Amino acid sequence: MSTEKIILGIDPGTTIMGFGLIKIVNKKMELIRMDELVLKKYDDHYLKLKLIFEHTIQLIDTYHPDEIAIEAPFFGKNVQSMLKLGRAQGVAMAAGLSREIPITEYSPKKIKMAITGNGNASKEQVAKMLQSLLKIKESPTNLDATDGLAAAVCHFYNGGNITSEKNYTGWDAFVKQNGKRVKE
Amino acid sequence: MSTEKIILGIDPGTTIMGFGLIKIVNKKMELIRMDELVLKKYDDHYLKLKLIFEHTIQLIDTYHPDEIAIEAPFFGKNVQSMLKLGRAQGVAMAAGLSREIPITEYSPKKIKMAITGNGNASKEQVAKMLQSLLKIKESPTNLDATDGLAAAVCHFYNGGNITSEKNYTGWDAFVKQNGKRVKE
Repeated sequence: MSTEKIILGIDPGTTIMGFGLIKIVNKKMELIRMDELVLKKYDDHYLKLKLIFEHTIQLIDTYHPDEIAIEAPFFGKNVQSMLKLGRAQGVAMAAGLSREIPITEYSPKKIKMAITGNGNASKEQVAKMLQSLLKIKESPTNLDATDGLAAAVCHFYNGGNITSEKNYTGWDAFVKQNGKRVKE
Repeated sequence: MSTEKIILGIDPGTTIMGFGLIKIVNKKMELIRMDELVLKKYDDHYLKLKLIFEHTIQLIDTYHPDEIAIEAPFFGKNVQSMLKLGRAQGVAMAAGLSREIPITEYSPKKIKMAITGNGNASKEQVAKMLQSLLKIKESPTNLDATDGLAAAVCHFYNGGNITSEKNYTGWDAFVKQNGKRVKE
């Protein structure tokens, strides 16, 4: 059984796609990369979708993630914005599906809860906690990238780890594994 | 300049994906194929999306369409159904985008208008008109497949033809070209 796993976390949107990659080695997370694909400079809707698809394929073919985690809100302002969001998610998912990589989706609330213990945490609080967890030196300024990274970390806490601690996931697992680093 | 063009029309949904392929030869349409991909028997949302993606890729690689037309409602019952629909559209679009095929989308109303002259026509009326236009012998019973086919035919009428009659598209073009076959 492999003791190493790579998780790609994505926060797909039609203006910015945030993403983060982590490697799990012996139950510990290491940051591989976090970044964003800025799409707001393009007017054409199809070009945006094409870039999301191609960029996700490129990430997969470069880093060979074993699993993909997607931040997916289930509610939105209106039907039109949800249709657009669904399309952005759809093309990112198509990239994963075409490479046969399992996809799991998490609501923003669940991700915030898994990482900070508070489902209503701010993006800044999530970023701060990720900085601490992954020993990132510079303070993350790019909060879309951290949203993608947060999805990957949430997936790790929710059974995305390879230790089969199935009854022992999420925030509880994190507290148990990282008790000293948790501030409640 | 090529005088032949193939258009793939798709009506993507998470329960059924209807599709139709037409060939345009010397401004005239010929039916290549119409069919549906039935997805309601599968429970898993990702499996459905994967099948839509793979089936669309397969259609593209088999028939080599020059252009893709998609039936895309812009309004829906609620945000959750629109998110699902957006995902189904997104994966179908990703298939086209990955093969560099131009995609155009049309609202159901515009498609009905282009084919029957009535934006509120029933599916049966659209099917009946397609049967006449494309000289289909048997009466189409599969109204999801005809919805996909209708998108392709609508695209042809809306400038999808290769004759550069740019000021001369849609229903008007159809009437002018097919006056005797039109019943208003």
